[in-house]
Amino acid sequence: MFEHIVYDLERNMLTVLDQRKLPGEEIFLECHTGLEVATAIENLTVRGAPLIGVSAAYGILLEWINLCRSYPPNEIRKEIKKYILHLSRTRPTAVNLFWAIDQMENVMERECAQFDELASELYRKAVEIHESDIRNNELIGTYGASILGECRNILTHCNAGALATGGFGTAVGVIRSVHSLNPGLHVWVDETRPVLQGARLTAYELGKLNISHHVICDNMAGYLMSQRKVDGIVIGADRITSNGDAANKIGSYSLSVLARYHNIPFVVAAPRSTIDYSMASGAQIPIEQRDPTEIKEIGNRQITPRDSEVYNPAFDVVPAELITAIVTEQGVFRFPYSFKEV
Amino acid sequence: MFEHIVYDLERNMLTVLDQRKLPGEEIFLECHTGLEVATAIENLTVRGAPLIGVSAAYGILLEWINLCRSYPPNEIRKEIKKYILHLSRTRPTAVNLFWAIDQMENVMERECAQFDELASELYRKAVEIHESDIRNNELIGTYGASILGECRNILTHCNAGALATGGFGTAVGVIRSVHSLNPGLHVWVDETRPVLQGARLTAYELGKLNISHHVICDNMAGYLMSQRKVDGIVIGADRITSNGDAANKIGSYSLSVLARYHNIPFVVAAPRSTIDYSMASGAQIPIEQRDPTEIKEIGNRQITPRDSEVYNPAFDVVPAELITAIVTEQGVFRFPYSFKEV
Repeated sequence: MFEHIVYDLERNMLTVLDQRKLPGEEIFLECHTGLEVATAIENLTVRGAPLIGVSAAYGILLEWINLCRSYPPNEIRKEIKKYILHLSRTRPTAVNLFWAIDQMENVMERECAQFDELASELYRKAVEIHESDIRNNELIGTYGASILGECRNILTHCNAGALATGGFGTAVGVIRSVHSLNPGLHVWVDETRPVLQGARLTAYELGKLNISHHVICDNMAGYLMSQRKVDGIVIGADRITSNGDAANKIGSYSLSVLARYHNIPFVVAAPRSTIDYSMASGAQIPIEQRDPTEIKEIGNRQITPRDSEVYNPAFDVVPAELITAIVTEQGVFRFPYSFKEV
Repeated sequence: MFEHIVYDLERNMLTVLDQRKLPGEEIFLECHTGLEVATAIENLTVRGAPLIGVSAAYGILLEWINLCRSYPPNEIRKEIKKYILHLSRTRPTAVNLFWAIDQMENVMERECAQFDELASELYRKAVEIHESDIRNNELIGTYGASILGECRNILTHCNAGALATGGFGTAVGVIRSVHSLNPGLHVWVDETRPVLQGARLTAYELGKLNISHHVICDNMAGYLMSQRKVDGIVIGADRITSNGDAANKIGSYSLSVLARYHNIPFVVAAPRSTIDYSMASGAQIPIEQRDPTEIKEIGNRQITPRDSEVYNPAFDVVPAELITAIVTEQGVFRFPYSFKEV
């Protein structure tokens, strides 16, 4: 599988795969300025919380190097602050964006003789953020495979794949690790209405990885479970509270109830940074309501009657007691969960 | 709500609403020949098992009258047999089609002095088939309201409405009856992937009836149940076996499991003619696999990667033990079910 985000230090350029065009077209976008990176985040060319963080780190690096070339040393810090403010407004809800900005700012605040010297350190930090994300996902994959390693049919929802991260993926990372143990693995991919991230992105990734799969409509998952055609379920998470409740793409909750009814292991795969220690339970997680046109229209074609209302929550919350295991880069956690900040 | 199927004896013409164009356009098709009626059934201008039966009865009537005008009396029976053979091949799985053909053939075989006389009897039979379908649905609605009458939020799946029947509807008929008791009723309409009968047809009907509703993606139903926003679920059925297992549009099974988990009444509304006494249980019901393009494409736009496979069962089976009640024109039946031919 090719890299979907690559930074070239010599040309000071970030190349990213335009995810809006997938799976129909594989178009790469070259960003030569920090502003171009910010725009790519804002307009969803890159998406997925971990990938937003990685992209932001490279954006700051890119902008810093450009500033060093064209601004007097005493103005660089002022200018980069302006850029970071702009960057922070692109996707205000993505926690990883702010985390990555913090990491890069810590480096910039160091004392140094030359700004060039700082550029090297910023480069090392951006690469470290990117590489540690991939490494964490590989660990998540390995831990996940310790639970689902004997599955012949795994079902997943939405896209928690390489495309949503710096690389390898979280839920798809677990699938990759299971596949390396068991090349006969088959995956059921929920299409994931309304935005179809499963049909478009997860199916695309599994195709690239030569992992056997079928796309299904979300309403078919229960029927497959009743037919004993699903041995395990793995999903990612957008936020996990300290008691182990996990917010994820709408539809995840239904899957967890169906999994319990059919006695199928239900695994949540996410980096430790997904845990929000400030929240005791999922009841505190705000559920984003999205644009009704996501349901009312498909490809600019009106589906519902003009006067019919639609309801479009983007996420739901899987209660901790329905999660067989939460897998992070630090290992496998089981109910009752009690995550504490370290 | 206007009539979606009207026969005009004076002009010997059947007018049907073209359901393929809904909800965007309300276009009526005028059929002047039996062949035109057969084509309307075949190309899904009219759909829904009970409506197919009603349309077929009118098609035979229409053809008979035309034959009486242009053929010598001794050739009419031979010609109508050719037509019926053609009609029977339009939608081979719709049980109601064959039932309606049988009813009309019984009339045609009667002794008579004049063929004109038979035409009057065929007209009475076609109208009877149509009107008894509506009357049965009204009874189903009344019985259904005896169970769900106090619901403030009912969820339904697919389209088991007036449009699928001669009029009034089965599951939507129950909703209409509840609404007449409780005008504050609100309905959640599953969009019903992949063909979107809920988003297109049920939402259209509820709009015409001024019944408050929201369309949701199928994967949102469980989340709504967890939020106590659903008090009852009602669906139609394509086939019910003698033990009470009910085949219906894919996704019905998942809803029944979610309903049981959340302790929500789950009602199946269907005319007695839906019961297949020849089958002991749902395991015997063949599940139709449909065209992959229903999932792969939306409005001619490719959604999934070209090489990804899809799985597209049209139906699943709700086990009898997850059905709170089966409502027919003969009353309310409860588990354990034991339907016998009378």
